[in-house]
Parts: sequence; C-alpha cells; structure tokens
Amino acid sequence: MSHNATVVPVALGDRSYPIVISTHLLANDIRHDWLADKIQGDAVCIVTNETIAPLYLDALKRHLTAYQVHEIILPDGEAFKNLDTLNRIIDGLLEKGLNRRVCLIALGGGVIGDMTGFAAATYQRGVDFIQVPTTLLSQVDSSVGGKTGVNHPRGKNMIGAFKQPRSVLIDTASLSTLPDREFAAGMAEVIKYGLIWDADFFEWLESHATLLQQRDASALVAVIARSCEIKAKVVAADETEQGIRAILNLGHTFGHAIEAHMGYGQWLHGEAVAVGMLMAVRMSAGLDGTDVYDRLSRLLAAFDLPLLPPAGMTKANFLTYMAVDKKNITQHIRLVLLTSLGDAEVTSDYSAERLSQVFDFYNA
Amino acid sequence: MSHNATVVPVALGDRSYPIVISTHLLANDIRHDWLADKIQGDAVCIVTNETIAPLYLDALKRHLTAYQVHEIILPDGEAFKNLDTLNRIIDGLLEKGLNRRVCLIALGGGVIGDMTGFAAATYQRGVDFIQVPTTLLSQVDSSVGGKTGVNHPRGKNMIGAFKQPRSVLIDTASLSTLPDREFAAGMAEVIKYGLIWDADFFEWLESHATLLQQRDASALVAVIARSCEIKAKVVAADETEQGIRAILNLGHTFGHAIEAHMGYGQWLHGEAVAVGMLMAVRMSAGLDGTDVYDRLSRLLAAFDLPLLPPAGMTKANFLTYMAVDKKNITQHIRLVLLTSLGDAEVTSDYSAERLSQVFDFYNA
Repeated sequence: MSHNATVVPVALGDRSYPIVISTHLLANDIRHDWLADKIQGDAVCIVTNETIAPLYLDALKRHLTAYQVHEIILPDGEAFKNLDTLNRIIDGLLEKGLNRRVCLIALGGGVIGDMTGFAAATYQRGVDFIQVPTTLLSQVDSSVGGKTGVNHPRGKNMIGAFKQPRSVLIDTASLSTLPDREFAAGMAEVIKYGLIWDADFFEWLESHATLLQQRDASALVAVIARSCEIKAKVVAADETEQGIRAILNLGHTFGHAIEAHMGYGQWLHGEAVAVGMLMAVRMSAGLDGTDVYDRLSRLLAAFDLPLLPPAGMTKANFLTYMAVDKKNITQHIRLVLLTSLGDAEVTSDYSAERLSQVFDFYNA
Repeated sequence: MSHNATVVPVALGDRSYPIVISTHLLANDIRHDWLADKIQGDAVCIVTNETIAPLYLDALKRHLTAYQVHEIILPDGEAFKNLDTLNRIIDGLLEKGLNRRVCLIALGGGVIGDMTGFAAATYQRGVDFIQVPTTLLSQVDSSVGGKTGVNHPRGKNMIGAFKQPRSVLIDTASLSTLPDREFAAGMAEVIKYGLIWDADFFEWLESHATLLQQRDASALVAVIARSCEIKAKVVAADETEQGIRAILNLGHTFGHAIEAHMGYGQWLHGEAVAVGMLMAVRMSAGLDGTDVYDRLSRLLAAFDLPLLPPAGMTKANFLTYMAVDKKNITQHIRLVLLTSLGDAEVTSDYSAERLSQVFDFYNA
C-alpha cells in the first residue's frame, strides 16, 4: 500500500510532468496525482507488444478499473517501428471509436514508447499519453525529452514529433525480465549522463558498478532518477534541440555510423554508443593527459559493453555514415566533445588530423 | 515592382506569421520580410500537384533564385491525402538529402497545404513551411489555424498535427483558373465568417455578391483579408481547439454527415457546409422571428450553392453520421448554433424535438 517513490519533475511550463520511480510501483497503490489525475476522459488505450503484454499488462490494468480500458498489442521489435504500424495503431483507435479525450498508455521499451507517443501526437491532431517504460534504456532516455517517431527505410526516426507525456511511471521490477545485453545497453546511456554533466555521478557509477550489474533495486532507482534529472535539465534548457540539447548525442555520431554500417539491429544502440563515447573522448583534446579514457573503458567493461568498433569497419566507412547523420548541419560534421569530465560541448573546432588519428588508433 | 499588399498578422506568440494578400503577388517583387526572412537555410522544397505545377510553379521559383530549389509534384486530388503520400513526400526529402533546415513550400489547395504542413510537422520532428494557397477555400480556411493532416480510410483528417506556417502568400490571380464549383465552395466558408462573427461583413457580402461572383480582384482581396482576420481572432483565442474555436465548425456537423453519406468527393466540402449552415440556422432558436435564414439562402444562391440536403438522405442517415463526428465529446451531439447574426455558440442545450423538426422541414 506504500506510496514511497522517487519523483523527478520535468519542468516544461504547461507541459510539465512527473517521472515516478519505484522498486515495486505496479504492485502497490499509485497516487492519484501520478496517474488518475493525468487521465482526462473515461477511456484509456494501452499500447504494448507481444513480449511485454503477458508480463505486465494485467498488473497495469489493475490500476485502471475506473476507466474503459482498450488494448492494442503489436509485434515486438524495431522492424515494426514504421508508418504501417502507426497506421495500425490509428486504425485500432478509430475501430474502438475513441475520441480526442482518450489517453494512450505506452507499456514497453523505446519502440513502443516512440510509436505510442507519435500516435498520441497525431491521432486527431493530438491526444494525451502516459509512459510506462519497461527497459532501462527507455527509462533513462525516452522518459524525458518528448522525442517520438517512427523509422523510414532511408533513416531512423525520420518521421516524428515532439510530444510530452502527462506522466511517466517506472517500476524497476520490470527490469528483472530484461535480457543482459539490453540492460548493458541502457547502462551505456546512463554512463553518458555522467560524462557530459556530472563527474560525481560518474564516480558514483564506478563505485556502484558491481551492485548495479547485480540489478540491486535501490541502486537502480538512484541511477534512473539521476539520469532523468540530468536529461530533464538539458531538455528544459532546449526543448526542441536548437542548441545545448545536442550534447545528449555524445558518442551518437560515431555510434550511428556503427549501427548503420552493421545494419540496424546487429549492434544494439547502446552498444554502438558505448564505443562512440570512447571515440569521442579520444577526440576530446581537453581530456589529454587525464585518465578519463581509461576510466570510461573500465566502467563500460564492467557492464560487458564493447570497447572497440566492429572488426573491419574502416575510416571511410565511418566518414560515409557520419556525413549524412541528421544531427549535422549541412555537410559539416559537428561533434559532441568533452571539455572535462562532466562537461560537454558541440563543436566543429577540431582538426581533421585528430579525427584521422582516432580512427588510426582503432585501426579503422 | 510594387510591394502593395494587404497583410493580416496572425498573433500566436513565437509562432506568429503574416498572411500577405495581393492581386498580383507572384508577378511583382516579394518583400524580404514576407518570404526570404522566413527561410532559415539555403534549401527549399516546393510541394505541389500535377494540376498546379504547370500554372504557377515557375512564377513561384522566380522568387527563390537565392536558394537550392527542390520540387515534389504529387497527383491531384483528395484521394491522395493519406499516409502513403506523406511517406512519398518524406521519401523525396530524404532522397534529396535535405536536413532539418529545409523550408517546405506548399503550392496548391487545401490537400497540398494539409499534407505539406503535416510533412513539415513530422519530417525529422519538424521543419519550417510556407503556404502559397491557390484556391479560395485554402486561402480563407487553411491559411489560418495550423491544422495539418491526412485522411484515414475510417475518417477524414484523423492523423495530423497543429503546425503553424512561417508565412502565407496569397495571390488572387491564382483564382482565375479555379473552377466555378470550387470558387463557390470557398465562398461558403467566407459566408460562415459573417454568420458566426461579423454581421457587417455578412451585409457587405450581400451587397458585393455580384462583384464577387465576377471575381473582381479588389473585392476578392477584401474578402480574403477579412475572412483571415476573423479566423485569426478565433484561433488566437484557442489555438488547439479546446473551446471557442469550435464555432468555426458552424454547419460542419450537418455538412460532414452529407459528405460521408454521399461518399467523400461527391459533394464538395463547401457545398455540404452551405446546406449545413442553413440547417444550423434553422436549429438556432435565437434567430426565430428574424430573416437570417432567408438572407442566408439568397446569399448562398447568389453563388450557386445548394440549399437543400441530397435527395433521399433521411433523418436516420444524418443521425448515424452525426453521432460519430469527431467534434462531439463522447456520444452527445454538440452543435454550433447562432444566438444572433454575427454571434455563435457551441451548445448541447437544444431540444431533440427541434432537431427533429429541422430534418422534417427538409423531408429528411
């Protein structure tokens, strides 16, 4: 019956919302201001997938007995994150006769969150949605920032919108069923927050790596809360990514090149970002003479994350994909680099030679 | 070389923009603050259709010599206003390698404007767009309000977003090629603005009907400017249609029932709205004892608009479609009614008997 939970407020004016984090959120009562107060009408529609539905759908529905509850259960996987599946969600909503007062609830990982959020952004030009993220990556990343969308054959997340949820409910118990590789991929993004924003948090991660690797419940709540806090600060300063928000892309330009080169789905996003962060740290002249690169390597290794680019991936391969990365303005490659541990900048002020040396270091 | 034009400002905070209206806008220079200042990057992409491209594409491109100009030319017609065509636009933008700084320019009627606006709302989570509406309906209706979207097999405009253009350029010369039926359909929405907001404007339309029917250039500029002004006032008060904005739907609940019953495309939207407005005026108890119904009938007739519902369409037909109209909250039919000429309200405070009598009047 406990209402104990850590709440991270995301301050975005009239689009502000709480992120509620607890070790057994769904097993306990959920306070009205975290759920019921966020639902305007009398109908909700839970959007989830075939993997998650048998695990957590009933536990979630127990909290929604006051509403007409509809369900849309999608196939599992990034391959289904496209306009066809969006259309399937819209079709389901219309078939059920749901109007603009419906509240969508995304139950699942990043793919479910991104698609449900985009459906909420566009169904009848916008309805409310609530996120119940069940993977570490979606809890620390898509919980904050309002990025929603689907992939296009020519690129990831090429069709989308900024749409803030009304509330985010995170139950760390849902991580008990998460495969190790996906857990590690989520930790890569967590480590990123330490690198770009908070040296103390980075140090805390170093000292708690073993506990986290064992998925200790309290450590997880702390890690998720601090990650969301950091991301919320960055996003509040720049909601639609005109400037500073881009530091969240540390390691992503190199990482996207790896994902694209390998074919999406071979390397997990977080795995590619792990290597991308190492490459970005090596590119960061401000870190020369420090031990940040080695500390980062050890921390990533503690979570069994990769430390090297894919075998056989060349400098030319990297440059091909980096030039078309959508985060770059026109054709010039801007990179997120560290000025010190805990401090990042977006810059094109680096020498081509240094970039070249980074690839050489990895024999890329 | 003249810069003479009527400018209607749409005041929406940091999403404010000008609507520029002139008799020969494209044939003259266009002031920087109406076009060039609104384009952030060095690339634009004009989205138009096969009917409009041969008529006005070159005239528009003459003003864009300072930019990389791309074109996407779609098939003409409401049948193509769907997710497949949206995908085709997105595909074109990606194929051309256009990034987030591209500015889309919608050249055409409402279908082109709605789809281009939705593409701008969702391409890489949002890029700028400018509208160059070429039909009377799109000039007086979609120029203001930011409603964008596509149809779904289960309903019109079921997928979309609110997205404001950076600028709207209206050249009344483009109306010279507009078919009579489409011109009349646009006039139905113009007449609506008089009914819901401005009795003087309604009277002005009565006294200028002949001149307008001859498509007199100055009269058209005046009509478009006043229509945009009225819509801008209503939209500024309620950008995302939570309340008062719904008065813009006068006649639309009846009208949508007609369109749906006949099959979309049989009756033009404006034709259905014309009859819908007559039905709404007849429903409006506040007008009892006035001559508004007769004056409206005469004004619609002056533009050869229909005055009666489709033959054979019954009361039951109307009620079936009206119950699922998306403007209604839950299953209760709310209607836009007039309290007097020039003043409207959204209400469910009417007797079922009166509604029944309206259908009886038309033998529906």
